[in-house]
Amino acid sequence: MPEQKIIIIGAGLAGSLLAIYLAKKDFRVEVYEARPDMRNAEISAGRSINLALSDRGIAALKEVGMDEYMLREAIPMLGRNIHPLTGETRLLPYSGRQGEYINSVSRAGLNVALMNEADMHDRVRFFFGQKCVGFDCRTGEALIENAETGEKTSLKGDTLIATDGGGSAVRDSILHGVPRFNFSQTFLEHGYKELHIPPAPDGGFMMEENALHIWPRHQFMMIALPNIGGSFTCTLFLAHECRNANGSERALLVQNGGNAGRSERALSSFDQLTSEQTLFEFFNTHFPDAVPMMPTLADDFFTNPTGSLGTIKCFPWNVGGRALLLGDSAHAVVPFYGQGMNCAFEDCRVLDSLIDKHGADWETVFTEYGSARKINTDAIADMAEENFYEMRDAVADPVFVRKRELETKLEQTYPDYFSKYSMVTFREDMPYSVAKEKGNAQDRLLMEICADVENVSAIDLNYVMELTRGIPTN
Amino acid sequence: MPEQKIIIIGAGLAGSLLAIYLAKKDFRVEVYEARPDMRNAEISAGRSINLALSDRGIAALKEVGMDEYMLREAIPMLGRNIHPLTGETRLLPYSGRQGEYINSVSRAGLNVALMNEADMHDRVRFFFGQKCVGFDCRTGEALIENAETGEKTSLKGDTLIATDGGGSAVRDSILHGVPRFNFSQTFLEHGYKELHIPPAPDGGFMMEENALHIWPRHQFMMIALPNIGGSFTCTLFLAHECRNANGSERALLVQNGGNAGRSERALSSFDQLTSEQTLFEFFNTHFPDAVPMMPTLADDFFTNPTGSLGTIKCFPWNVGGRALLLGDSAHAVVPFYGQGMNCAFEDCRVLDSLIDKHGADWETVFTEYGSARKINTDAIADMAEENFYEMRDAVADPVFVRKRELETKLEQTYPDYFSKYSMVTFREDMPYSVAKEKGNAQDRLLMEICADVENVSAIDLNYVMELTRGIPTN
Repeated sequence: MPEQKIIIIGAGLAGSLLAIYLAKKDFRVEVYEARPDMRNAEISAGRSINLALSDRGIAALKEVGMDEYMLREAIPMLGRNIHPLTGETRLLPYSGRQGEYINSVSRAGLNVALMNEADMHDRVRFFFGQKCVGFDCRTGEALIENAETGEKTSLKGDTLIATDGGGSAVRDSILHGVPRFNFSQTFLEHGYKELHIPPAPDGGFMMEENALHIWPRHQFMMIALPNIGGSFTCTLFLAHECRNANGSERALLVQNGGNAGRSERALSSFDQLTSEQTLFEFFNTHFPDAVPMMPTLADDFFTNPTGSLGTIKCFPWNVGGRALLLGDSAHAVVPFYGQGMNCAFEDCRVLDSLIDKHGADWETVFTEYGSARKINTDAIADMAEENFYEMRDAVADPVFVRKRELETKLEQTYPDYFSKYSMVTFREDMPYSVAKEKGNAQDRLLMEICADVENVSAIDLNYVMELTRGIPTN
Repeated sequence: MPEQKIIIIGAGLAGSLLAIYLAKKDFRVEVYEARPDMRNAEISAGRSINLALSDRGIAALKEVGMDEYMLREAIPMLGRNIHPLTGETRLLPYSGRQGEYINSVSRAGLNVALMNEADMHDRVRFFFGQKCVGFDCRTGEALIENAETGEKTSLKGDTLIATDGGGSAVRDSILHGVPRFNFSQTFLEHGYKELHIPPAPDGGFMMEENALHIWPRHQFMMIALPNIGGSFTCTLFLAHECRNANGSERALLVQNGGNAGRSERALSSFDQLTSEQTLFEFFNTHFPDAVPMMPTLADDFFTNPTGSLGTIKCFPWNVGGRALLLGDSAHAVVPFYGQGMNCAFEDCRVLDSLIDKHGADWETVFTEYGSARKINTDAIADMAEENFYEMRDAVADPVFVRKRELETKLEQTYPDYFSKYSMVTFREDMPYSVAKEKGNAQDRLLMEICADVENVSAIDLNYVMELTRGIPTN
């Protein structure tokens, strides 16, 4: 077979990992990236500075020999550290078992490591400041614009893989160029803003290091992930607008801090936080324990962009053998399961195994890939949306709190018990679609059991295990 | 209030009716239409030559004084005339009640009548051969391209209403210009092709005139609607491709005509019907009673385009007070409930009532319109997709046939009984969303009842009515 050239659009996490996978299969790989080389440039602040790396992502990194290196650079997060409005924080472990935890990694650090690894291969070339602005579905040519000169060039390889993210230009060309292309984009009413907790004066962490911190507040929430060096990156999830899309105003009870139960318009959306006064009123009311740790709150808040949270689904992902959408370009998800990157890495792994099977018969590889993978990316997209409501609301529901307690006991007692979260996060051998189906059945069962008891210690664990083992797994 | 100018994009059915509504409110109206004036031009063949006009559409026409004229030009269709593969055809009435029927109207005839009526108003001006190619969401300007010269002009009124159909250019600009615009387009694997049954030599109809004819064949179906003058327009609904989107081949049992039950690849998709030989093999096998009535079958089949069947949903429909999507541009539906046009006409009626309430406060009018209307257009979109499966498959299910029989008896016996179809089609006072909810509950109930009996005469109608009356209606 003559040497084939594969064009990758986008040198983000998925594109860089994919370049390594393909180089190891002796393909020539050209990666076109709109932004400058992040290894020489300032990292743009305010957009997911760190990420949770878990077993599906690690499994893919392992295949290219990058897992050990990355885990050295990561901070283990053993559970969710819940910050109630008043009272002590408490740690809810992710799993009752040893070794089942997630890892806070630097997005930029991981991306740079992947690019460096890809660059070790002679067959890989990166082109920065080269933005893909279109794709010809008929010829397979990509239109690339030089960011500096504005000059446009047409490029063509033996095939093209688009890892150009949620706003994919390749996908947009497919939307307009392929008849009967199924496509949806749906946005949450909530957006996000990244904020900062610096290291303590002594260089240590101001909160528990080995945890994902959550401030659940029903209509909104904040989370924080630890960074190497003692800082935390916080993300505030909050409604964009105080009006709903249908024009009605959010009816929001003032939560504590005011007269309990009095219906009053409280600050509960980004568009209401327009001054330092309203910002601090909001933070002091809802995140009083965090404010003293956030000296640059106002600066961060008014400087960093407000991001949107959307789910993108489409199909088919391929244009014959000429192009394939992979990662966020094919299936952007909301971040509430911490699976966006892990899912994209798993995409690379699945694609790699199909190239093993069919070689460079791209149409067969891509068609089989879509056929096998779509059900799983749909499943994680749906679970990620559902988990938003769980993270925001459920931790305040006593039945749910008992259910989490029961699950932890089950995981500690039975090596073969896995919560839905554990199946998604730690069982890289189990497809997302199976985790969703089995996990939902299990959740319904446990919620029913916990609704009927006052105290988890009254529950017969053996009996529950028998019931959960009876849930079919396909 | 100074005289306001409203730009309408598209002079199809919805745009033309809307122009009349707005002119009656003393607005100045300019309608820009990409195609030439159909009153002077040849009508393009092969795309929904006739349509089923029913009570929601009639209610809107009545408000502008057009209902009586249109019904004079229409052919009543009293029921579905089912053509089984062998044996006699049978008529399933749409309703047990007098006066509840649908009407076959000429799309072009209705469109011309609406344009002529709109043209009676001095305040309405039509511009033909003027194609909208973009909309500036910030300024509210539409970019209009002259079809002859290619010259582009920017236009702006006090507001703009886009009735430019399923492929709306205005909506595409909103998709790219409005942050967090929710959008989905999903296509059926089936497409459609229009075919022709001419009048009998004596000028009469070759089949029952006052019926919608259906040839249900499980994996595909054909329908026919009567035209003034004795002809029928047939529509064949058939899969585009013999492969599914996921690459697997359709496993299709040869239906009769072959050895019963033998699994064999039968002709069952457009891409297999590439020659006159395969075309006639397909038609002779599945539509033997229709073929003798279709002397131009091969010509029609290979000349007329194959259409796609898609559902489009999006939200919000308005850009502040600067633009509104209405009709198919906001919510294209598949044709299996015969409600696309009727729903668009109801759109105009709802919008008109909100202008009565809020005057030219476009942002309020549009926001309230979207808020009130979205749930109903979602409902009809979902019901239309579901009805495809009912029309194709259910008529061959004995439980479903008994259920239809039971419903007809209920409708004949009880003036307050309405099937889901009747609620959608004849109850213009009932929102689509209510018809869907109540109709589905009723369908589940009747199917359960009919699953348990051999013969409908054994069913206690009074008891069934009591149960259906107990179904909540909101």
